Amino acid sequence: MAPKVLRFISDFFVYETAKSVVVKSWSVGVINRVVQLLIILYFIGWVFMHEKGHQVRDTGIESAVMTKVKGLGNFSNRVVDVADYVVPSQGGSMFSIITNMVITANQTQGRCPETDIKCTTDADCIKNHLGNGIITGKCLNNDVGNGPKGWCEMEGWCPAENDKISGTPMKEVENFTIFIKNSIRFPMFNVIRGSFPSIIDDAYIKTCNYDPVHHPFCPIFKVGDILKHTDQSLDNITKNGGEIGININWKCNLDYNVENCNPTYFFTRLDAPFAQSSVSKGYNFRFAKYYQSEDGTESRTLHKAYAIRFEIIVSGNAGKFNTVPFLINLVAAFTSVGLATVFCDIILLNFLKGADEYKAKKFEEVSGIVSESGKERPYQGSQVSIKALGKSSNDSGTFSIGRQE
Amino acid sequence: MAPKVLRFISDFFVYETAKSVVVKSWSVGVINRVVQLLIILYFIGWVFMHEKGHQVRDTGIESAVMTKVKGLGNFSNRVVDVADYVVPSQGGSMFSIITNMVITANQTQGRCPETDIKCTTDADCIKNHLGNGIITGKCLNNDVGNGPKGWCEMEGWCPAENDKISGTPMKEVENFTIFIKNSIRFPMFNVIRGSFPSIIDDAYIKTCNYDPVHHPFCPIFKVGDILKHTDQSLDNITKNGGEIGININWKCNLDYNVENCNPTYFFTRLDAPFAQSSVSKGYNFRFAKYYQSEDGTESRTLHKAYAIRFEIIVSGNAGKFNTVPFLINLVAAFTSVGLATVFCDIILLNFLKGADEYKAKKFEEVSGIVSESGKERPYQGSQVSIKALGKSSNDSGTFSIGRQE
Amino acid sequence: MAPKVLRFISDFFVYETAKSVVVKSWSVGVINRVVQLLIILYFIGWVFMHEKGHQVRDTGIESAVMTKVKGLGNFSNRVVDVADYVVPSQGGSMFSIITNMVITANQTQGRCPETDIKCTTDADCIKNHLGNGIITGKCLNNDVGNGPKGWCEMEGWCPAENDKISGTPMKEVENFTIFIKNSIRFPMFNVIRGSFPSIIDDAYIKTCNYDPVHHPFCPIFKVGDILKHTDQSLDNITKNGGEIGININWKCNLDYNVENCNPTYFFTRLDAPFAQSSVSKGYNFRFAKYYQSEDGTESRTLHKAYAIRFEIIVSGNAGKFNTVPFLINLVAAFTSVGLATVFCDIILLNFLKGADEYKAKKFEEVSGIVSESGKERPYQGSQVSIKALGKSSNDSGTFSIGRQE
Repeated sequence: MAPKVLRFISDFFVYETAKSVVVKSWSVGVINRVVQLLIILYFIGWVFMHEKGHQVRDTGIESAVMTKVKGLGNFSNRVVDVADYVVPSQGGSMFSIITNMVITANQTQGRCPETDIKCTTDADCIKNHLGNGIITGKCLNNDVGNGPKGWCEMEGWCPAENDKISGTPMKEVENFTIFIKNSIRFPMFNVIRGSFPSIIDDAYIKTCNYDPVHHPFCPIFKVGDILKHTDQSLDNITKNGGEIGININWKCNLDYNVENCNPTYFFTRLDAPFAQSSVSKGYNFRFAKYYQSEDGTESRTLHKAYAIRFEIIVSGNAGKFNTVPFLINLVAAFTSVGLATVFCDIILLNFLKGADEYKAKKFEEVSGIVSESGKERPYQGSQVSIKALGKSSNDSGTFSIGRQE
Repeated sequence: MAPKVLRFISDFFVYETAKSVVVKSWSVGVINRVVQLLIILYFIGWVFMHEKGHQVRDTGIESAVMTKVKGLGNFSNRVVDVADYVVPSQGGSMFSIITNMVITANQTQGRCPETDIKCTTDADCIKNHLGNGIITGKCLNNDVGNGPKGWCEMEGWCPAENDKISGTPMKEVENFTIFIKNSIRFPMFNVIRGSFPSIIDDAYIKTCNYDPVHHPFCPIFKVGDILKHTDQSLDNITKNGGEIGININWKCNLDYNVENCNPTYFFTRLDAPFAQSSVSKGYNFRFAKYYQSEDGTESRTLHKAYAIRFEIIVSGNAGKFNTVPFLINLVAAFTSVGLATVFCDIILLNFLKGADEYKAKKFEEVSGIVSESGKERPYQGSQVSIKALGKSSNDSGTFSIGRQE
Repeated sequence: MAPKVLRFISDFFVYETAKSVVVKSWSVGVINRVVQLLIILYFIGWVFMHEKGHQVRDTGIESAVMTKVKGLGNFSNRVVDVADYVVPSQGGSMFSIITNMVITANQTQGRCPETDIKCTTDADCIKNHLGNGIITGKCLNNDVGNGPKGWCEMEGWCPAENDKISGTPMKEVENFTIFIKNSIRFPMFNVIRGSFPSIIDDAYIKTCNYDPVHHPFCPIFKVGDILKHTDQSLDNITKNGGEIGININWKCNLDYNVENCNPTYFFTRLDAPFAQSSVSKGYNFRFAKYYQSEDGTESRTLHKAYAIRFEIIVSGNAGKFNTVPFLINLVAAFTSVGLATVFCDIILLNFLKGADEYKAKKFEEVSGIVSESGKERPYQGSQVSIKALGKSSNDSGTFSIGRQE
């Protein structure tokens, strides 16, 4: 038993290494080193420096956004403030600034003419029309005394909204400012950052407006500037509404000081993909304010609000040195350097003076019809099968030239 | 100095390549090529075609959603429209359609019976009960003239809500339609897409309803269809409320025309994981409308609203050809082809006729107890250590057969 | 033709394998195996067990959150409930609990003193001041009979808000509870999970409060506990408002039973990055309730609400066994084991007794000035170029020692 174990152990600790052929040729030697150099440069320049192959990357950015709009506008002879024109009011990452409204005041439940469908007889008033209320099927043509004539009757909130009549858009929105406070976290590294540095004080914030060049960290954005960045016309967007994206992008290299981890902003028109479409231009929504009179009857004021909707979209990622990807790419680099051999073998074995000599050295041939007595024979036996050969192999980069059999 | 430098340079440009043994054996040759073919097929079919190993992938999809609900319903003898039943009204990616309500009108601050706790004496009215108001600790048993008897007294908004009394759910919700406009951006490629093509016009949108087969790009979704897709009963969801997810999935191959980058929709019940749970069935929330009478006293109407809550969840990724992952996987493919050798060596060195002959060719043995004079000796010296050997190595796939020492 | 094709085929199925040198040296053999063992341990322990290199990872978690707040508070001598203090009321992933308010009742459109700007003459009332209304430019100094004096006149909602006067914060918020229902989906594996198990029943939920140790799956969170976890003082946050993040983290290994896929919670102060900043402490927003008197004039009550804003941030990823990453890492592991050779070659060829002997065995030299007659010459011809050599190569880990030419 023991000798067998010993033999196994001594077999186990045998070291095996590849036998190499060393070629002293300037041409191939130089080509080899140049190709290796190119591969190393590729790894250093592209994989490590540009693609940051030595870093782990956290793409699961967590974000919280707080916003606050400021500004006073005029709409239908009234001075309106934030509580009037910003919905929802809580200052989240999505909010709308109402710039125009169709107001239908004092609506109560009842029957009245639908402003959409003209008629001459009851037959014109088909019931499955989708309008401001449920069509009763009656044409208000003859029997109404002093009301409007020639309209179908509907049941619902009366009077019906007529959205052809709209007010003067609130152009003052151009000078409104939006304060954006964004705090983010990269959970993988537990790095927390705010969208503006602590150094910024009240006095600066009171006077600054965001500008990509001069005030890149000012958290106050003028609506007019945002519209300019997105090539929106103030006239059109205040009249029909629109959707604007404020993108906050964090791209951080945490190998440097965390103070360098700062956001960049850019602005997009969210409905840009639909610019060519004939459907649903602009942005509007309906809401109502409800009132109750002393006698308990409920009435409402319906608002069709055209608004600029802002969505703050936070994205980004952070990288930091980590041994795992560093080692993996380092191993890949070393392995790739070996690929220079493939290229050089093609040159060496085919295009160089003395290619056949090299082949003879690189390849030792063993014929498949070798005698079974090989085990007993000493080394000279292999002299039969090892010959100088102009052999061809499809591997190792040699072209098929033909073999001597 | 100069000769040393020259020697270093000439050493540096020496080319080294592995010495190979060429085996002319049909069996091993065919096996080798077949294994190589399988590895190549795996890389082409799985890594490149299926897993798109030649593409970089952008998973950080940015999305903006705009929604608009349409439809008229009936609730407690009133015709209700969008402004009445959709909250919040701004048409974002999350909104609720109220289908049932418990309305408690004309609440004012005061003291009144709590509808939850019956009592016979004051001792029954424990103060830490969490109900509609703060329990005063008094049992309204004897001393109230004509009010309800046998209830604890509470302080707060009176009268207290009694949510056992509920109205008739608004079944018309089945025919309501939801218009969904989704624009997305893949920031890595700066590709912007909309959820429906520009080709779709007003006329088509006015008549179409989304259908996965016939109208996959119609942006109008009938609530009844969505409920059917998620196996929800209309009766149950309109009575108790529920949560529905509308998933918009973008999976784009940007190597093809960007026009082929289109979304697919599917619908889920968001509270599905809690289907077996006894807790919190359905979905409801409370809100109040506030009124002020002429004398300045404030009253409110409390609504406990049962609603269908829709959440639009946008996900997806896009891939595009990029040299970096392409080269990495190509190198991996080439390297893996070399693994066929490991497999073939096992066969060659153990199971093939003449295996020992092959071993003698493949392995040259150097004994550790070799004389230090090796440097001076010519080539014949190595004839001592190179012998035909039935040696065993645990590497290169040979089994341990035993060695001649 | 046929012989050429046959020759090509027989060439194609030639098998080529590297020629190896086997070194029977205990020292190098042991070092080789130890280094290989370390590499294997690294792959098993770090790559596979710690980094889960055999799994595909789904980071695109989809989430839906439903929340419900419960509790009764006191604010300005009124009992307030959920409908009063939670905005928005729909119970989404973001909501605010109002803890303090500056209420400005009965505002109507008109002219009145601005509470911000003192003046002595009209010249002090610059028009571009941003306040509660539009400055008319008039100083209410002399001409007003019984109103306040020494203030600029403004136009807008009157009377102007004076936010220096604030009420007593609603401290009862400490005992409020938040019920959180979170359902998630890993789209890659189509695994759906809920934040609490179905086993939890009504009775448990009515009594439990979340505790990381004793009740990790209880979905009821006491606001006071959350404030404690984030080191917030109740006094400060109820007075000035604040932003709290409730992070729900899912980290699932789907190779085990899916029942083990459960969330962990942690709590953060979202405005932590701005803690050192002098700007925008706390959190507040303005909203208005609108009233209409019998004669049709609209009035409003403006609220400046200080609130605790909660944002529920869901993150996580799931891994599951997959053949592709498993095979890739397995191949990487096998390839890396081969790197032990590089290390051992350095030792073998430089530091071991008989290093030159090993070099002579490992390297066969081919001189570049070899005669072109190599093809015709038998094996002895190569004895010219193969010599025992103390050669140096920069590859294969040998140090440059100098070569014999």
